[in-house]
Amino acid sequence: MSGSTLGKLFCVTNFGESHGPAIGAVVDGCPPGLALCEADIQLELDRRRPGTSRHVTQRQEADQVEILSGVYQGLTTGTPIALLIRNTDARSKDYSAIADTFRPGHADYTYWRKFGERDPRGGGRSSARLTAPSVAAGAIAKKWLAQTHGIVIRGYMSQLGPIAIPFESWDEVANNPFYAPSAAIVPELEAFMDQLRRDGDSIGARIEVVAENPPAGWGEPLYDRLDADIAHVMMGLNAVKGVSIGAGFDCITQRGSEHGDEITPQGFLSNNAGGVLGGISSGQAITVSVAIKPTSSIRIERQSINRAGDPVVVQTLGRHDPCVGIRATPIVEALLAIVLMDHALRFRAQCGTNGPAAAPL
Amino acid sequence: MSGSTLGKLFCVTNFGESHGPAIGAVVDGCPPGLALCEADIQLELDRRRPGTSRHVTQRQEADQVEILSGVYQGLTTGTPIALLIRNTDARSKDYSAIADTFRPGHADYTYWRKFGERDPRGGGRSSARLTAPSVAAGAIAKKWLAQTHGIVIRGYMSQLGPIAIPFESWDEVANNPFYAPSAAIVPELEAFMDQLRRDGDSIGARIEVVAENPPAGWGEPLYDRLDADIAHVMMGLNAVKGVSIGAGFDCITQRGSEHGDEITPQGFLSNNAGGVLGGISSGQAITVSVAIKPTSSIRIERQSINRAGDPVVVQTLGRHDPCVGIRATPIVEALLAIVLMDHALRFRAQCGTNGPAAAPL
Amino acid sequence: MSGSTLGKLFCVTNFGESHGPAIGAVVDGCPPGLALCEADIQLELDRRRPGTSRHVTQRQEADQVEILSGVYQGLTTGTPIALLIRNTDARSKDYSAIADTFRPGHADYTYWRKFGERDPRGGGRSSARLTAPSVAAGAIAKKWLAQTHGIVIRGYMSQLGPIAIPFESWDEVANNPFYAPSAAIVPELEAFMDQLRRDGDSIGARIEVVAENPPAGWGEPLYDRLDADIAHVMMGLNAVKGVSIGAGFDCITQRGSEHGDEITPQGFLSNNAGGVLGGISSGQAITVSVAIKPTSSIRIERQSINRAGDPVVVQTLGRHDPCVGIRATPIVEALLAIVLMDHALRFRAQCGTNGPAAAPL
Amino acid sequence: MSGSTLGKLFCVTNFGESHGPAIGAVVDGCPPGLALCEADIQLELDRRRPGTSRHVTQRQEADQVEILSGVYQGLTTGTPIALLIRNTDARSKDYSAIADTFRPGHADYTYWRKFGERDPRGGGRSSARLTAPSVAAGAIAKKWLAQTHGIVIRGYMSQLGPIAIPFESWDEVANNPFYAPSAAIVPELEAFMDQLRRDGDSIGARIEVVAENPPAGWGEPLYDRLDADIAHVMMGLNAVKGVSIGAGFDCITQRGSEHGDEITPQGFLSNNAGGVLGGISSGQAITVSVAIKPTSSIRIERQSINRAGDPVVVQTLGRHDPCVGIRATPIVEALLAIVLMDHALRFRAQCGTNGPAAAPL
Repeated sequence: MSGSTLGKLFCVTNFGESHGPAIGAVVDGCPPGLALCEADIQLELDRRRPGTSRHVTQRQEADQVEILSGVYQGLTTGTPIALLIRNTDARSKDYSAIADTFRPGHADYTYWRKFGERDPRGGGRSSARLTAPSVAAGAIAKKWLAQTHGIVIRGYMSQLGPIAIPFESWDEVANNPFYAPSAAIVPELEAFMDQLRRDGDSIGARIEVVAENPPAGWGEPLYDRLDADIAHVMMGLNAVKGVSIGAGFDCITQRGSEHGDEITPQGFLSNNAGGVLGGISSGQAITVSVAIKPTSSIRIERQSINRAGDPVVVQTLGRHDPCVGIRATPIVEALLAIVLMDHALRFRAQCGTNGPAAAPL
Repeated sequence: MSGSTLGKLFCVTNFGESHGPAIGAVVDGCPPGLALCEADIQLELDRRRPGTSRHVTQRQEADQVEILSGVYQGLTTGTPIALLIRNTDARSKDYSAIADTFRPGHADYTYWRKFGERDPRGGGRSSARLTAPSVAAGAIAKKWLAQTHGIVIRGYMSQLGPIAIPFESWDEVANNPFYAPSAAIVPELEAFMDQLRRDGDSIGARIEVVAENPPAGWGEPLYDRLDADIAHVMMGLNAVKGVSIGAGFDCITQRGSEHGDEITPQGFLSNNAGGVLGGISSGQAITVSVAIKPTSSIRIERQSINRAGDPVVVQTLGRHDPCVGIRATPIVEALLAIVLMDHALRFRAQCGTNGPAAAPL
Repeated sequence: MSGSTLGKLFCVTNFGESHGPAIGAVVDGCPPGLALCEADIQLELDRRRPGTSRHVTQRQEADQVEILSGVYQGLTTGTPIALLIRNTDARSKDYSAIADTFRPGHADYTYWRKFGERDPRGGGRSSARLTAPSVAAGAIAKKWLAQTHGIVIRGYMSQLGPIAIPFESWDEVANNPFYAPSAAIVPELEAFMDQLRRDGDSIGARIEVVAENPPAGWGEPLYDRLDADIAHVMMGLNAVKGVSIGAGFDCITQRGSEHGDEITPQGFLSNNAGGVLGGISSGQAITVSVAIKPTSSIRIERQSINRAGDPVVVQTLGRHDPCVGIRATPIVEALLAIVLMDHALRFRAQCGTNGPAAAPL
Repeated sequence: MSGSTLGKLFCVTNFGESHGPAIGAVVDGCPPGLALCEADIQLELDRRRPGTSRHVTQRQEADQVEILSGVYQGLTTGTPIALLIRNTDARSKDYSAIADTFRPGHADYTYWRKFGERDPRGGGRSSARLTAPSVAAGAIAKKWLAQTHGIVIRGYMSQLGPIAIPFESWDEVANNPFYAPSAAIVPELEAFMDQLRRDGDSIGARIEVVAENPPAGWGEPLYDRLDADIAHVMMGLNAVKGVSIGAGFDCITQRGSEHGDEITPQGFLSNNAGGVLGGISSGQAITVSVAIKPTSSIRIERQSINRAGDPVVVQTLGRHDPCVGIRATPIVEALLAIVLMDHALRFRAQCGTNGPAAAPL
C-alpha cells in the first residue's frame, strides 16, 4: 500500500525530488501487447514541459523520458514499465535562503513537521515537477483507452483568476499557452498574466477535463466508486483545493426533477451526473472540474517563521509558475486516464472482458 | 484491494443491501486497548437514523448494532471488529414496480450495466442505508481520535437548496432535524421542505465538516495525500457531486498574496488551506465542504427506459428522503474520522508514535 | 491492507473469536451471476466441523452459515458476500485456569506481547475455529472454479506422525475421519490416535492438496507468484510449519536433467514443478504439501511462565484436537481455491478473459 | 496492489529485464532519518554479484547501484527511494536460438501462455538477475533493523545436492563461494561442482536464514501472519520449491510434548517454533529454511516443444549458474529483512512504537 502508488490494478509508483538526480515512475499492470515507444510518452511530457512560454516557470528541462523495462520490440510485455526522467537544469543555490524558513501556503512547513528531514532544493518532493511522472504514466493509459475503447480524454482551462473563459472549440486549446478553448480571450489572459508577474503575485485557475466515449459499468458501488477515485487523484494533484463531477456544486440548488438526467431510447437528455451514477460509469461523457490555488512561491513579502519558531519575512525569488493552472491541463488529463484505465481492468477482473449485460444503450 | 474497503491501516469493509437480511462492517486495524461498547456506536447511528422527523424517509429502522468480535471485557483486542445491523422494516413490495426500469439520476441503470444481476429492493446496495456501517465504523475512529489526540469532528448544513444557512453556533446543530447551526433559519427550512414534499420533488444541500485540533504531519506527499483521501471518501458518499478543502473553489479568484496563510510564532493568521499543505496536515483545523445532489427517487413523472430499451415513464412512490443532505452530517463526520484515523496510523508506522520533529508551533 | 484479508481481487476478510458471539467472513470481488446458496457452503463447513469422530475435539458446533448479503434470487450480485456463523457451544469456564499463563507452543504468549489485551476464551482469535470462515469463503471459490474452468480441488492426509499413508484412491478419502486415501491404513491410524489420547499428547501430520485442470497463465512473475501466494496462505494456516510445491524439498538432491519436466506435443512427461513455472501456472495439476505441527494444548504437564514472569506448570484440559491435521484437509482445499480464484481474476484483469495466447497444449 | 510490489508498509516495487537497459526497485515507506549511502547497498549487491567464482555464471556485471531519490545529505527523507542498476554485459545473441522454444522447467513456457509477448533475452524478467533489486532493497531493511532493534540477519548453505553441510561457524560463511559454514567441506563442494559443470548439468540446494534478536509481537493473527509473509517472499524467489519455519517438516513426526517449546523465567528451552507462534514473533531467533531447485538452463539435451507445438530438442549454452543456490544466501537474507521491516512498521502502526505490553521475557 505504498502511499506513492496510484491505482489498484494499473499501478503507478512515483519517485523523485525536484533537484535530485532523476524523477520517474514504475507502471505495473499494463496489459501485454500494447504498442508503446518513448515518443508516445514524450508527446504528453512536452505538453506539460516548463519554459515554453513567458507565463510559466523559465526552468529549462528537456524532460526526456527513457523506458527502462516492460517493452520489447515495441510492445508492452505485461511486466513493470519503468520510466526515467533525469533532472538537468536544477539551480539549487536559488533555494538556500529559504531552507530554514517556511513559505506561507507551502508544503515546506508540513514536510518538516512530518519527516524532520527534507530535501528543500526546488521544493524537493513537493514540487509540481513531480507531476511529470504522472503525465508519463498517463500517456500509456491514454493510448490504451483510445485503442481498446475509443476513449478520448481532453481538458481545458475554464477560468483564470477573475476571467471566465468561454468554451468555443476544442480546436483552439492547443493554439495558446493557456489551454484556453477560445482564441478571442487569449489577449486578455496574456495581459492579466503580464501584470501579475509585474506584481510578483500568483493566481488560481479552474480546469475542466472530459472523457468521451467511456463504456457503462466502470466503478465499484462503494467505497471505490469511479467518482471517488477521480476525486482522489485530482485532489492529490499539487495545488488542487476542490473537485467536482458533472453539475458539481451547482447541484445544491437543483431539484431532483431538474438534476436527474432523463433517459430515452436514443440516450440521456442531459448530463448533470457527469457520466457517473452510483459510483459507476453510465456511458455518458465523464466531466470533471478542478480548482487550482495560486502558487505560494511569490515575490511579495509575507510573514512566516523559521525552524526555531522565530518570526521571519519570506520572499521567494526562484523560477516559479505564477499560475500552476496554466500547465495543469495535460496533467489532469493524465490523471483521469490513469483512474479510468485502473477501473477498466477492475471491471474485466470482476465481470469479464465483455461484462454481463446486453444493454439497450 | 477489496473495492468495498476504506482505509489502508484502519480498514472498514462494508457489506449489505437495503432489504437483505443485514448490513454491517468489519473494522480491521483498530489498536488494542480502546474502551468500546455498543452504546458508543449506537449514539452515532441514532443521529443518522431514518424516521426521526417528517423531513426524512419514514422507514422505521432501529439500526441496533451488535459487536460480533474484536472487543473483550470492554476493550478492543486489536483484532477485527465486526459490526452487524439487521434490516427490520423492509417493505420490498414498494419497489416491485420499478424492478425493470431505471430511475433518472439513479444507480439502477449503471448497476444493471455492470453486474447484470442486482438486488432492486430498496435500491439494494446503492441505497443510502449503506452509510450506516460507515457511521458505525466512524464512531470507533471518532472515539480513538478524541481520546488519543483530543480531536473533535463536527459538521453542519450550510445550505439547503437556495437557502444559505448562516453559522451561528455549534450548540444549535443538535437542536433541529437539519443540523443547521442557526435557530432562526429553521422555520424557513421547514417551510421549504414542507412545500417540496407537496411538490413530490427533492433538493440538494451543502454540508461542512471540521476536524479541530489535529496534529501536524498526517498525510503522504503523493499520491495518498490527506486531502486526496478526504476527497475520495467524501465523493464516495452517495449523492455527493463536489468536494472542497479550505477555500475550495474560491481559490480560483484568489491571489497568492491572499491565499497563502501567513504564519507567526502564535500560529497561522488564516486558514485558506483548510488545514492541509502539500497533502499533509498543518495542525490547523481541517475544513471540508461537500455538495449533495437532490434525491433521484421522486414522485414527479420522468422519462426513462426499461431493460428492453423501451421508453417508460417513471414515478417513485416508496419512502424516500426528499433531501439526503438532511441526514448527511453524521455521515460526513464519520467518513472524515475514518480517514484521519487511517492517516494517524500511517503516520506512526513511518515516523513513530511521536514523530521526528520538535516543532515551534 | 487489512491484515485479516486474503486475496487482492477475490478478497476474504475474516473476523471473530472462538467464544465470541460469532465468526465469519466478508467475501468481496466475487463475479456476479454465480448460483450460490447456503447449502453450497454448508457442505464444505460440515466436512471441517468438530465433533464428528472420537479423534477430534468434542466441541459440538452446528457451524450453520447465514448469507447476509451479495446474493439475490440465488445468484451472486457482484457485491460483498457476508457469511455469518454463530458460536453456540462455547464453554468458557474451561479456560479460566490458563488465562494468566502461556501454553508452550501456543499463541497465548505472542498475542499478549503484541496486543496486551486478548480474548483467552477458547484461544480467542488464535483458535483453529477461525478456519471455518476460510472454508466458507473457499466453498464459493471452489464452485466458481469448477463452473468456469472445470477445476477440481482435492486433498488428503499423506502422513500421521510416523505413519506414512499410501495413496490408493481418491474414493477412499471421504470414507474415514482422517481423509486418508487408503482403507487398509485406517485401523493403524485409529489405534495410533487412541493411544495418543490415552497419553494426553498430540501429533503432527502432512496434508497434500491438488488442483486438477487449471489453465496455464495464472500468477505474476514476481513478487506475487502463484506459488508465493499459495505458500502465504498455507503457512498462514494455524499449525503449519512447512509448505512445498511439486517436488518440494526433494528438489535439493535432484539434478536439472531430472527435475525439469520435459514437454511433448502430448503434454508434460512429469510434474516436479507442481504445476507452477516461474511463478505462473503451466496447466499441469498444482500440487502442494503442508506440514502441520502437533497441537500445543495437551494434558501432559509442561514448564511455562505466567504474566508476572514466574515459573508455572501448564496442563491443558479443555476439548482439543489431538491432531489438528485430521480436520485440515477441507481447510487446505479451501485455501488453495481462494488463491486460485484470486489469480483467475488477476489474470483476466491484465490479459482479458481469454488471454493473449493461442497455445499448442 | 501491484503484483511486482513486496510489503504493505515497507514497499519494494521491482522492475526490469535481464537484458533490458536497467533493473531496479522503488522502496517506499522507509522512515526518515536513516543514514544511507550507495556503499551500504553496494556491499550487499557485491555479495550476490555474478562472475565471482568459477562455480557461478560468468556474466560480468558491476551491479553498480545509483540512488535516484529519497536520500538528502546522507539521510533518508521518508519519500520513495529509487534504486537503479544498469545492465552492462548483456550478450543477447546467446539466446536467439531459444526464443521460439521452451526450456523444460523454465518460465519460458508460462510467460508465453500468460503474456503472449515476452522478452526472451537472458530469460527476460524471469531471470535470477531480478533478485538484485531485492537485495538492494533488503540492504536498506537490514540496516534499519540493525540500527533500531539490533537485529542480525544471516544465512548459509546447509546442503548442496547430496552433500549435507554441517554448521560449524558463522565465521566461515564469508570465506568460501558457497556460503558454507564449514571450511572442511569446501573441497568436497568444489569437486562436486567441477564435475557437475563437466556434465553440463545443474543441482539443487538448501539455504538456512536466521534473524537474531527480533522483538516479540511482530505479525498479524491471520491472514498476514509473520510466517505466512516469510513463506510468501521465500517461495516467490526464483527456483524455490519449499519453505519451512523452525522444525519445519520434522514437526510431522513430533509429539506436542516434544514440539512445544517450554518457557522459563530465563527464556525458551528450545526453538521448534522458529521464533513464530500463532503468526507472531516470540522474541526467539526466526529460523527459515528454503529448498532451491536445480537450474533449468543446462547443456544436456532435453525434449520440449516450440511455439507451434512441434517437438524440439533443447540444449542451453548461455552463461548460467549450475546451482542458483550458491548465490542465494544474500538474497534470502534480504528477503527476510524486507518482511521483518514491513512487520516492524505494521506493529508500530497498530500498537505504537513501544507496544502495549510490559513483558517478563
